[in-house]
Amino acid sequence: MRERLLILSLIFFQFIGAQKISSVEDKIRDIYVKSLTEGKSYSWLEHLSKNIGGRLSGSLNAQRAIDWIKDELNNIPALDSVWLQPVMVPKWVRGTFEYANIESSPGNTINVNVCSLGGSIATPTGGIRANIVEVESIEELESLGEKNINGKIVFFNRPMQSGLVNTFKAYDGGLGQQYIGAAQAAKYGALAVLFRSMNLRLDDHPHTGEMSYGSLPISKRIPAASISTNDSELLSSMISLNPHLRFFLRQDCKNYPEVKSYNVIGQIKGTEFPDKIIFIGAHLDSWDLGEGAHDNGAGVVQSMEATRLLNIINYKPKNTLRVVLFMNEENGGRGAKVYSESVSKKREKHLMVLESDSGAFTPRGFVFDTSDKYFERILKWKPFFEPYYIHLFRRGEIGANLRLLKKDALVLSGLKTDSQRYFIHHHSEIDTFEAINKRELELGAATMAALIFLTDHIGFE
Amino acid sequence: MRERLLILSLIFFQFIGAQKISSVEDKIRDIYVKSLTEGKSYSWLEHLSKNIGGRLSGSLNAQRAIDWIKDELNNIPALDSVWLQPVMVPKWVRGTFEYANIESSPGNTINVNVCSLGGSIATPTGGIRANIVEVESIEELESLGEKNINGKIVFFNRPMQSGLVNTFKAYDGGLGQQYIGAAQAAKYGALAVLFRSMNLRLDDHPHTGEMSYGSLPISKRIPAASISTNDSELLSSMISLNPHLRFFLRQDCKNYPEVKSYNVIGQIKGTEFPDKIIFIGAHLDSWDLGEGAHDNGAGVVQSMEATRLLNIINYKPKNTLRVVLFMNEENGGRGAKVYSESVSKKREKHLMVLESDSGAFTPRGFVFDTSDKYFERILKWKPFFEPYYIHLFRRGEIGANLRLLKKDALVLSGLKTDSQRYFIHHHSEIDTFEAINKRELELGAATMAALIFLTDHIGFE
Repeated sequence: MRERLLILSLIFFQFIGAQKISSVEDKIRDIYVKSLTEGKSYSWLEHLSKNIGGRLSGSLNAQRAIDWIKDELNNIPALDSVWLQPVMVPKWVRGTFEYANIESSPGNTINVNVCSLGGSIATPTGGIRANIVEVESIEELESLGEKNINGKIVFFNRPMQSGLVNTFKAYDGGLGQQYIGAAQAAKYGALAVLFRSMNLRLDDHPHTGEMSYGSLPISKRIPAASISTNDSELLSSMISLNPHLRFFLRQDCKNYPEVKSYNVIGQIKGTEFPDKIIFIGAHLDSWDLGEGAHDNGAGVVQSMEATRLLNIINYKPKNTLRVVLFMNEENGGRGAKVYSESVSKKREKHLMVLESDSGAFTPRGFVFDTSDKYFERILKWKPFFEPYYIHLFRRGEIGANLRLLKKDALVLSGLKTDSQRYFIHHHSEIDTFEAINKRELELGAATMAALIFLTDHIGFE
Repeated sequence: MRERLLILSLIFFQFIGAQKISSVEDKIRDIYVKSLTEGKSYSWLEHLSKNIGGRLSGSLNAQRAIDWIKDELNNIPALDSVWLQPVMVPKWVRGTFEYANIESSPGNTINVNVCSLGGSIATPTGGIRANIVEVESIEELESLGEKNINGKIVFFNRPMQSGLVNTFKAYDGGLGQQYIGAAQAAKYGALAVLFRSMNLRLDDHPHTGEMSYGSLPISKRIPAASISTNDSELLSSMISLNPHLRFFLRQDCKNYPEVKSYNVIGQIKGTEFPDKIIFIGAHLDSWDLGEGAHDNGAGVVQSMEATRLLNIINYKPKNTLRVVLFMNEENGGRGAKVYSESVSKKREKHLMVLESDSGAFTPRGFVFDTSDKYFERILKWKPFFEPYYIHLFRRGEIGANLRLLKKDALVLSGLKTDSQRYFIHHHSEIDTFEAINKRELELGAATMAALIFLTDHIGFE
């Protein structure tokens, strides 16, 4: 009798187990189908890209984006509250467009495509014309020393490593140099610095990005610009033919005092554990070139859409779900800093922090920054994602901004996408809505929603 | 002493094991790096797309492609022999461009974008103007019957299912209807058939494809065309407003007698097992619209490049490596048929048949059609592919053409790519070189080379 009871209860629990899994699988299928067939992410991104556009911190466009996101969040019925969190941000303005040329022989010039790096100072109004010296690295700059650098423009021409399959690794390889290069070259008397654009493709679009003068006094600062990959190749070959080649650069950018801006936050209060927070978000600012469609309009609308999808499949989160569109990731990190300080102060406990910041390309999976214990539990969810070709569950670091939340969150995670085309668009004038594939964007939103759903429904404990 | 010997030999064999794995990993890394940094696939594809272009079976362009591929194979030093295998192929010619319009009111027309389906007959020279009836399926056509169909143009307006993540599944869902629709509608007295293009995106480009009249007598045949997705939406909405709407179609295509063409084959004779063949290949014909860049110039140059990559990493295959660029996949399957008949006749044993026919998008893995035994062995190779984000190893069928080789091959396999953007381009005028990403194409070539290398170097036994 006991044995029969045992068998019966085993059958019963297996049945319940199967039911539960099947309902989880059904919910996830529903999320994907609804994202692909009734999604709003694409039309949202069209608005953010085309009707607002590039939205650098402190700009009018950034404020327009804040207002629009707040309105759209207010239109998602499930959200209990939507608010703005004030943040002081740096303000840098590109000014009139940059101009540069190579003097191939006295009086003959070839125009090249450049753009100022964010944070750079302007050249004198009449521009700078000087000899140009090509280096590959800070080390090479140092070995050349003052006698070879003084009075010249320094051209850092290190290509991204095309042999790396992970293009973000290839990007990281050049990032540091671009950040500190101006300050380093200024020490040796350089007049300006020029960086080969961080783009794996040869084309005509210069890519901007962040730079810093570190502790360099204002009087010692020199202008920093980026030059397209095609023009980098041209310039390099011309330097090799004529070491006394002269280069002309004119730019008009300017740093202004800090201004007030905002993070935009919306929230669904948890039905069972309102004090435990699941964070889904993305940075809402972008560079001023292009429309910030991949970087990071995609992440903004995917975070909003994931929240909306859970609502339209009628899922009510047990924990508090908070969607956070934060300001100033590109040139200062102030938005994430203010958010994380507020979290620490209020001792808010985050179960999960999930961000999207790798473009609207086909999602491949997630990177997780967490303990062995939670990572092992999350790995058990992999089979739920297999039908959607989501295979990548690896440990690693998420973007530097949200890493500030590490001490207040059990799991930090980032959506990972197919990275091959990202750096064609990233920080350039061709980061536009036309470069977005609707389905790839929608799959990313669904993949985020599915992870949030599993975190809330199954949890880590 | 014995124990010490045992331990020593264990250490020794572990060391050998590690050496072997490390050398396999090194070779595969070398393949990927060389494909991304010294690859020829992209410039080859540029030539095939831009200097040759669309290459429908029996066309002059198809012959130009044959000649060019033969020349390029002859330039790969490792190949012992390159030859042409004669194939008789159907010849269908589109003629002058198609024209169609919707008569919104008598005398007022709106032009729409259409193209003939391959194999279709022409309309009369003056075109066909008739009422149009919209159906979703063959079943709906049958239920409407002769009284509703006779004397009309039938518009099959079934959208691809956007809720499916695997777009090839969504494609298969509409394929059969397009293939047999003309013959079915002709039975009920239809004057012509029009199909919504198989494209998941709304745009203005009609997509062609294969159709058949089956056993329908020549006198009963009716023209078949494809209409763009945007115009399908427009037409459908206009039909719903005016059930007596008239549609005009004029097309000028023609079937000609069969002509002689070729498969192009190159071979590296195996150093140890010359009688065992590893096949890598792709169909070299394409539709006449566009340049056949994704479908299937990509597969052609990837197969050539995989062969070349094994050569430039100095790998000499133990088994015979045969690269086969076969003719007439799109509208007849004759090339693969001739090849497979020759294999059967000569009793040639194929270890592996690997094809590429899913576009130059980021590779995701492979589909395998094989026994449990071989599939389990191949699964052990998965870890070698992990560093390259290749996760998909699933069982399934490869393309119908090469499936003919099943009885003569241990393993049939196909490269699988990210499928989200494929059906934007497939069989349309925008399947051009501009839609190719260099790195994604190169990763596909490397992934094929890696599987071929493992098949040859480790094998299944």
